[in-house]
Amino acid sequence: MVTSPVVNTYPLSSYTFGTKEPKMEKDTSVADRLARMKVNYMKEGMRTSVEAILLVQEHNHPHILLLQIGNTFCKLPGGRLKPGENEIEGLKRKLTSKLGANSSALVPDWQIGECVAIWWRPNFETIMYPYCPPHITKPKECKKLFLVHLSEREYFAVPKNLKLLAVPLFELYDNVQRYGPVISTIPQQLSRFQFNMITT
Amino acid sequence: MVTSPVVNTYPLSSYTFGTKEPKMEKDTSVADRLARMKVNYMKEGMRTSVEAILLVQEHNHPHILLLQIGNTFCKLPGGRLKPGENEIEGLKRKLTSKLGANSSALVPDWQIGECVAIWWRPNFETIMYPYCPPHITKPKECKKLFLVHLSEREYFAVPKNLKLLAVPLFELYDNVQRYGPVISTIPQQLSRFQFNMITT
Repeated sequence: MVTSPVVNTYPLSSYTFGTKEPKMEKDTSVADRLARMKVNYMKEGMRTSVEAILLVQEHNHPHILLLQIGNTFCKLPGGRLKPGENEIEGLKRKLTSKLGANSSALVPDWQIGECVAIWWRPNFETIMYPYCPPHITKPKECKKLFLVHLSEREYFAVPKNLKLLAVPLFELYDNVQRYGPVISTIPQQLSRFQFNMITT
Repeated sequence: MVTSPVVNTYPLSSYTFGTKEPKMEKDTSVADRLARMKVNYMKEGMRTSVEAILLVQEHNHPHILLLQIGNTFCKLPGGRLKPGENEIEGLKRKLTSKLGANSSALVPDWQIGECVAIWWRPNFETIMYPYCPPHITKPKECKKLFLVHLSEREYFAVPKNLKLLAVPLFELYDNVQRYGPVISTIPQQLSRFQFNMITT
């Protein structure tokens, strides 16, 4: 038999959540965001962004940690790499910026695992695809999603303007309206893993 | 940087397609299929099925080989394992039955690769999920999708009642109406791979 990669998943209750200073969004509208993307593209070329799938379990079902901005918009923790930055180091930097405590002793030792999906932005528009579309020779962004293996106990510091939610896979699945195409198909991308649900 | 697993993809034109005797479906309706599933479950327990993603390229874009039955219904080549059968051996057996020539010398040496998705059927119904839903202790089917690495040249014998189609990822993506939830999200599951498009 082919063995699936195993992911240890700990109860949400084994993690501790505090708060820290707000991390404001750089843009106040989608149009601003796309305009800034264009300016950066002119300077630095294709944007590479990295995002993290942080897993916990409740009632023996996997949940993903999402950052909620305002009342509806959810995103994975992560962000844009600096030009030439290593993906793994860049994702660790972004995770610490988004969820790490101000005291470095409390920051998790982020274990970046498997790349589970890659999305491409062909134009300075919101739409992305899980492949580089034919005839697109200069994509504007490449976004990579990585599984992050959490330890049994961690402390997360959540910026005061954001909420950290543990959303079950069954809530994400087939829910593109609420979570968008990238996050709503994470259940399919994780289906090949075997979750070792640890109850402590 | 994290390196993506590489998949060599050869042009559709490098493969040869013949025909062979029809392989009729065992059931003539969805109701018959679910009823047979129930009878088999009583005898043998949970059904395990295995399906293959066979990749080719056209115009430098990955295409998946699908079997079309009648005018609209498409499926991946594969099928149900015998009780206790090894997944890899079972998938090879099913691929040979569906697409292998009658002369064994012409049958491809199937190279079964990565498991890319696992789907669960909680009840004797058509709906499946990419996780075993909470509170389901006795799922009725587990379906595993594997990438199959094709050689540069192969001969496929297609049953006369079926058509073999090479469908581009961009046609599958976001097209649940036409291809169903399992096949339409294959582009997302393959996005983590790097396709080495070989032009011969």
